[in-house]
Amino acid sequence: MKQFTSVADVANFLPELIREAIQLKKAPFAYQHLGKNKVLGLVFMNPSLRTRLSTQRAAFHLGMQTIVVNADKDTWKMASGEGIVMDGEAAEHIKDAVAVMGQYCDILGVRSFAGLANKEEDYAEQTLNDFIRYAGVPVISLESATRHPLQSLADLITIEEYKKTPRPKVVLTWAPHPKALPQAVPNSFAEWMLAAGIDLTITHPEGYELNEQFTRGAKIVYDQRQAFKNADFIYAKNWSSYTHYGQILSRDRHWTVTTEKMALTNQAYFMHCLPVRRNVVVEDAVIDSQQSIVIPQAANRVWACQAVLKRMLESL
Amino acid sequence: MKQFTSVADVANFLPELIREAIQLKKAPFAYQHLGKNKVLGLVFMNPSLRTRLSTQRAAFHLGMQTIVVNADKDTWKMASGEGIVMDGEAAEHIKDAVAVMGQYCDILGVRSFAGLANKEEDYAEQTLNDFIRYAGVPVISLESATRHPLQSLADLITIEEYKKTPRPKVVLTWAPHPKALPQAVPNSFAEWMLAAGIDLTITHPEGYELNEQFTRGAKIVYDQRQAFKNADFIYAKNWSSYTHYGQILSRDRHWTVTTEKMALTNQAYFMHCLPVRRNVVVEDAVIDSQQSIVIPQAANRVWACQAVLKRMLESL
Amino acid sequence: MKQFTSVADVANFLPELIREAIQLKKAPFAYQHLGKNKVLGLVFMNPSLRTRLSTQRAAFHLGMQTIVVNADKDTWKMASGEGIVMDGEAAEHIKDAVAVMGQYCDILGVRSFAGLANKEEDYAEQTLNDFIRYAGVPVISLESATRHPLQSLADLITIEEYKKTPRPKVVLTWAPHPKALPQAVPNSFAEWMLAAGIDLTITHPEGYELNEQFTRGAKIVYDQRQAFKNADFIYAKNWSSYTHYGQILSRDRHWTVTTEKMALTNQAYFMHCLPVRRNVVVEDAVIDSQQSIVIPQAANRVWACQAVLKRMLESL
Repeated sequence: MKQFTSVADVANFLPELIREAIQLKKAPFAYQHLGKNKVLGLVFMNPSLRTRLSTQRAAFHLGMQTIVVNADKDTWKMASGEGIVMDGEAAEHIKDAVAVMGQYCDILGVRSFAGLANKEEDYAEQTLNDFIRYAGVPVISLESATRHPLQSLADLITIEEYKKTPRPKVVLTWAPHPKALPQAVPNSFAEWMLAAGIDLTITHPEGYELNEQFTRGAKIVYDQRQAFKNADFIYAKNWSSYTHYGQILSRDRHWTVTTEKMALTNQAYFMHCLPVRRNVVVEDAVIDSQQSIVIPQAANRVWACQAVLKRMLESL
Repeated sequence: MKQFTSVADVANFLPELIREAIQLKKAPFAYQHLGKNKVLGLVFMNPSLRTRLSTQRAAFHLGMQTIVVNADKDTWKMASGEGIVMDGEAAEHIKDAVAVMGQYCDILGVRSFAGLANKEEDYAEQTLNDFIRYAGVPVISLESATRHPLQSLADLITIEEYKKTPRPKVVLTWAPHPKALPQAVPNSFAEWMLAAGIDLTITHPEGYELNEQFTRGAKIVYDQRQAFKNADFIYAKNWSSYTHYGQILSRDRHWTVTTEKMALTNQAYFMHCLPVRRNVVVEDAVIDSQQSIVIPQAANRVWACQAVLKRMLESL
Repeated sequence: MKQFTSVADVANFLPELIREAIQLKKAPFAYQHLGKNKVLGLVFMNPSLRTRLSTQRAAFHLGMQTIVVNADKDTWKMASGEGIVMDGEAAEHIKDAVAVMGQYCDILGVRSFAGLANKEEDYAEQTLNDFIRYAGVPVISLESATRHPLQSLADLITIEEYKKTPRPKVVLTWAPHPKALPQAVPNSFAEWMLAAGIDLTITHPEGYELNEQFTRGAKIVYDQRQAFKNADFIYAKNWSSYTHYGQILSRDRHWTVTTEKMALTNQAYFMHCLPVRRNVVVEDAVIDSQQSIVIPQAANRVWACQAVLKRMLESL
């Protein structure tokens, strides 16, 4: 595996990858020899807690050394784009920085983010694609402007572990939030669930439709309570509008996930990728309940990442 | 050992712990197998040099992997407290962040700090207690709002190594400083010395009395020169007022530790936890003298931490 | 080897050091036992990408553990100089911080930088010299105010690998830049080339003469095109004026390295230490050409550092 950026990179062996992740959990250090003498470089362009720690833990299980670069603080400001005259703030072009990092690391992970100002720019995934083009080594997305594939793989593993029926009803629900957030997590969640053949319903206020490229095959329901009926999993997440790009169209607290709404479901498990705004996205009573699986879900970030790294190491 | 936050956590075996630390110094890597395949997470909420490095060194001696999280820079701003509606700056609740870190690490260390604005809040040790409550793994305090136990253990080891009589006279002296500092170091120093049966004198200007919970059993002397007489160890430290909470009542340079005052002692050793304001807290001539043991004292931070980590690893 | 700060530290065995670096490249992990149970501390006072990563990679090859300290962010602001009264912003004196770090690390690396405000101060190399004086362990310069020896050693290795004649003509050319930069890279490049017996020409606008201490033995040519004739290597770099200390005397884009000027050379290779301002220092067409060896040059930072660390470890 030369890159891990979307479900397309693993579509051919998705069920095996999930099984492998669950196996790794039982014997975390079974493949410690694979990463011996190998270095994983992790480049963060914005804050990270789960990704930062779970990736280091996964690499450690595989015997790899990790070097973390906080690209927003430790290094030079970077330029991107072709043919530009670099007489401004940026001291280094991303193509040079990435080519150099590829000389020092055996695998590179990168977390970039959506600016939310320009839809075309964000969806062009310039930073991630510059890494793929110039690194010369395999590249893992640690979340990009429009996708968060390690999160989605962890989500799928979690659903596989907790599901009570062969084809559970999974509901992705929009929830309010004080700030404009990217569509990366919901985009990715939708495309991974659909690729895995999950029965997916998405519910959100009008105007919050995601890019169809990711959601084709899902049911879109504008009535949240209607959507929750018979759900086996409720996955809450805020995102800003795709159509009115990057805008907040609603902060309506009627969309907060509450105990009363959870009662409409088939005793559904509650999921969220974290970090979560308590009592805005979801009530304490829900996230602190027995049905909340947000912590095991976060813990599964290790095994998702480890399954991917293992494949990459095997193909080096 | 499930937590290390104050002398109370080790009161039952304090002399053994000190002996063990001194033993580890002679064979640093003797227990390298204990930490194999284990991860220590270090969470810093404010700057740190000695703690950051000595803890990593101690973990390395024990064969552990360390992951450092600069919680003030690398991750999301955190909220705390029950039932709050998170519609402000904080993107994540500390209870969720800690629970997640506990999934990725086998032991967690945390450095928090006193705000010095609200005595009750600082002395409630909210952050440290949130770690203990939500981590699900052993927690080490790397300094909290009101205590710095790894420093005090290192101080005790140092006094054990340098003392010339079975029960030396140790003097903790307040010293001036341009900024308001927490009471964590003097609180902790006092409670550890007293728990170890040391003859402790504390000297400071009036109004700088520490919380009696920590100092009960120590002599309080307001005349610094009087206190220095026959001292075997002078431990200098500034702190802000506990009574007039967080305030600077004095910047009086007559409290600076000088050669002339050191001459009143029983050729006492000079100690300070560092970082130290030279020529404000202590004159160059004292800290650079043969009697100054601030560097061996700092070096002992490794063995203090290693003795604690070793116990924790043994009880995992 | 107790310090690595300039070519003088390795002058007695420079050809062997280069051979050794090239050997290490063929068997990176051959000396992994040397660094076992050893800790390398890296202290950065300003941003770094290549140095940060290549040094960690080199240490990893040698089996060493690395601890990184971002001294501008992770720790306390530091004071320097003798006898100062520390009642300002700085919480710790560099002499204490360095002595402490020397207790926790077996080798220390430090990156400091030129303030460019005061020539005497910069050329006194206060920070680097404080490390050498107070660390008590071997010290490697990761670039200082006036030299960048690991870069120059990597440059020499690169020229050794790519040269087509026994004594190639190497041209160091000044190039324009929007900001005032230190003389560290050109100073160091000149002294290393000359120590290695390279035929060195330096070209720059008048007023950009470097300190003669570094350039004695090189040809100084003010006509860039004249200098490029028959060159085997073009090494581009901006620096601020040494005479009019720290000033930008010219931003003249006629000094940019272009394809048309490269045509004057003996099919010269293009070198730059990176980061580079594209289309200001050098045209895309040159740096992206087959003759550009900036990426292998950056990759050689690993072997330069590893050869130095190996010598230091052998002498511990």
